[in-house]
Amino acid sequence: MAELFLPEAPSAASPLPANEPPAIPRGSVGVVSPQRIAFDQPLALTSGQVLPRYELAVETYGSLNAERSNAVLICHALNASHHVAGISADNPKDIGWWDNMVGPGKAVDTDRYFVIGVNNLGSCFGSTGPASLNPDTGRPWGAAFPVLTVEDWVRAQARLADHFGIERFAAVMGGSLGGMQALSWAITCPERVGHCIVIASTPRLSAQNIGFNEVARRAIISDPDFHGGDYYAHDTVPRHGLAVARMIGHITYLSDDDMATKFGRAQRAPADNGEFHYGYDVEFEVESYLRYQGEKFSTYFDANTYLLITRALDYFDPSRNHGGDLARALQSATADFLLVSFTTDWRFPPERSREIVRALLQNNRAVTYAEINAPHGHDAFLLDDVRYHAVVQGYYDRIAVKLGLGERKQINGVLA
Amino acid sequence: MAELFLPEAPSAASPLPANEPPAIPRGSVGVVSPQRIAFDQPLALTSGQVLPRYELAVETYGSLNAERSNAVLICHALNASHHVAGISADNPKDIGWWDNMVGPGKAVDTDRYFVIGVNNLGSCFGSTGPASLNPDTGRPWGAAFPVLTVEDWVRAQARLADHFGIERFAAVMGGSLGGMQALSWAITCPERVGHCIVIASTPRLSAQNIGFNEVARRAIISDPDFHGGDYYAHDTVPRHGLAVARMIGHITYLSDDDMATKFGRAQRAPADNGEFHYGYDVEFEVESYLRYQGEKFSTYFDANTYLLITRALDYFDPSRNHGGDLARALQSATADFLLVSFTTDWRFPPERSREIVRALLQNNRAVTYAEINAPHGHDAFLLDDVRYHAVVQGYYDRIAVKLGLGERKQINGVLA
Repeated sequence: MAELFLPEAPSAASPLPANEPPAIPRGSVGVVSPQRIAFDQPLALTSGQVLPRYELAVETYGSLNAERSNAVLICHALNASHHVAGISADNPKDIGWWDNMVGPGKAVDTDRYFVIGVNNLGSCFGSTGPASLNPDTGRPWGAAFPVLTVEDWVRAQARLADHFGIERFAAVMGGSLGGMQALSWAITCPERVGHCIVIASTPRLSAQNIGFNEVARRAIISDPDFHGGDYYAHDTVPRHGLAVARMIGHITYLSDDDMATKFGRAQRAPADNGEFHYGYDVEFEVESYLRYQGEKFSTYFDANTYLLITRALDYFDPSRNHGGDLARALQSATADFLLVSFTTDWRFPPERSREIVRALLQNNRAVTYAEINAPHGHDAFLLDDVRYHAVVQGYYDRIAVKLGLGERKQINGVLA
Repeated sequence: MAELFLPEAPSAASPLPANEPPAIPRGSVGVVSPQRIAFDQPLALTSGQVLPRYELAVETYGSLNAERSNAVLICHALNASHHVAGISADNPKDIGWWDNMVGPGKAVDTDRYFVIGVNNLGSCFGSTGPASLNPDTGRPWGAAFPVLTVEDWVRAQARLADHFGIERFAAVMGGSLGGMQALSWAITCPERVGHCIVIASTPRLSAQNIGFNEVARRAIISDPDFHGGDYYAHDTVPRHGLAVARMIGHITYLSDDDMATKFGRAQRAPADNGEFHYGYDVEFEVESYLRYQGEKFSTYFDANTYLLITRALDYFDPSRNHGGDLARALQSATADFLLVSFTTDWRFPPERSREIVRALLQNNRAVTYAEINAPHGHDAFLLDDVRYHAVVQGYYDRIAVKLGLGERKQINGVLA
């Protein structure tokens, strides 16, 4: 189990001095630490390869009830991790990536749900991945780490559910790539998913999506510091390629309008007379922002993981083995579904979610669908939007009623 | 003057054997060769720098009439050149980039108009640019070549007009970046532009546009073979960075729908069982296409020119010195205007053209505007679309009537 520090009970293990309790906002799960769980049985992968053993980095929030009926699995997108909510014990500035969504009294209410955040297999935040040691060689896997699929992640995560003794999740939930995992859970392990929550996602990448992924990969692979994926042995990282990859990705996460509002054509540091510098250094705020994002990313993200995760995105297409018919691919699913999309998301636009909704309705599944009018593009799924969060909160409240998980706690006489 | 070979009069200078006249399609300007025109007066640039001398590569089609009233200037976009129409004398496979638009009996009818195609200053197809020799050092300019603006291009082209004795163009016309040049001509040299034709363009780049340009530039600049722009001296080119830059650009030229139609999720060379290869080599057609486009581009385009032209795009904003008011920026213009946009162009969407239209109407200018419902994204301006070409042809026919340039030639009893 994760070490879980609730506001009411700050632990002595907290890195913060005992006489200075951290100012934890109401509704935070508090200071959290990950655990690493080892799986020693070989894992057969879609590619035909076998991973001899692996570890998954995990955080949990809330308590698993006696019936083990209140578990929620949160699946992450490209560059996120198991650190979904709360304050990292290692770094008080490191707040979970979906902290606005998950916590006591929040949409995913940890007073009633036991929430698991898991770092994907192949990622670089504690789970086994290309930077891990290959037991056969004693050196990092590097380019030899097997290519994974969304289905492989689900298989790896299913063992995590076994580890916690969870036969059936109240909900499996994710945004973007995380939504693909939730969808795949509902298709491949139908009996283990009560509710499937798919946010800002798609049943498959478009040619344009694959195109952007491919450009990002080319930027990494053609960086001489990539060394065919074995840069660990050369004590370097392909940071230029990784930065360019991240810059490309970042543009696709934001809407054109959002970028116009945030940056417009504002100059970063104009010459004395307000003029341009007439050169190739930063002139515009948007350049500065993208460079900063790219450079920051290149200091903490593993390049091989970037390749691996974008490739898993490319491959995902549950309809592929059903003649392209998504409804047939979803025939096995028995969960109830919530889908949410955002109007200005041009990476995975609402039409991609509607496609899933139509396919589910063809199968007579119970589907709730919300299309949120939001200016923030794909990134909207990470942001605090009152209508979006109200939809998710309402959905989880209904699940709680169905499962007898009790009411939302009252705070100051009003529902939290 | 360009050597101009019309079908009726194949020249002995043609590289094709005289007894095998080339199969020139009806309406082609035929086999053409460029000329290079030198300008020995220093050119003062927007940046404050001065270019001591320069040459422009030019092709011309049709004949300048005695009144010199039938001249049309065609301005090119990022990677094009003066080779607008016809078949290159050097390479019979090299057809001009706007050959479907310009030729005898075509929308821009070279039976009646004298058309000039000019390679932009700073480009790499014959005009003076970063790869040219710096007279001060005897070595290629490289990184020392001055940064240019759209206004600088217009200044350089105005001298070209002087060279041909053209006081006033019947029309200045361009698509994308070429449209910016046409707009700039109308603003900065109003007395020299009768009609201004701006296609698939914008009055200024958005933050997203600048963002994509910046990522492309970072890919080039961070390629170790760039050598700070002086790769000529190292006998290399930053081909990986240039390829990535081109791949990014290429995605933005196509619409999402167009890419879906052209490539979808088609596999390039599936494994025997139709399966994926589970690796990072080409899996999908769209990857193969983008890689090919990127690699081809890196063999013929100059990296410093890529930086220079994308930067000129970034800087363009005629409203900048008018408090952001485009209508005020256009007050000086006296031309009549034709604007064309394409519904699926997400690089420079129709709203950008409408913004120009509104600003022109505020100035009581005569404006024709067509929004073409076309699936091909930004690239639509280069493609043969019957409605689009009919709009442009109708506009040029009206100009011809106004200027007394005569009727379109009859071919087989119908208008060509």
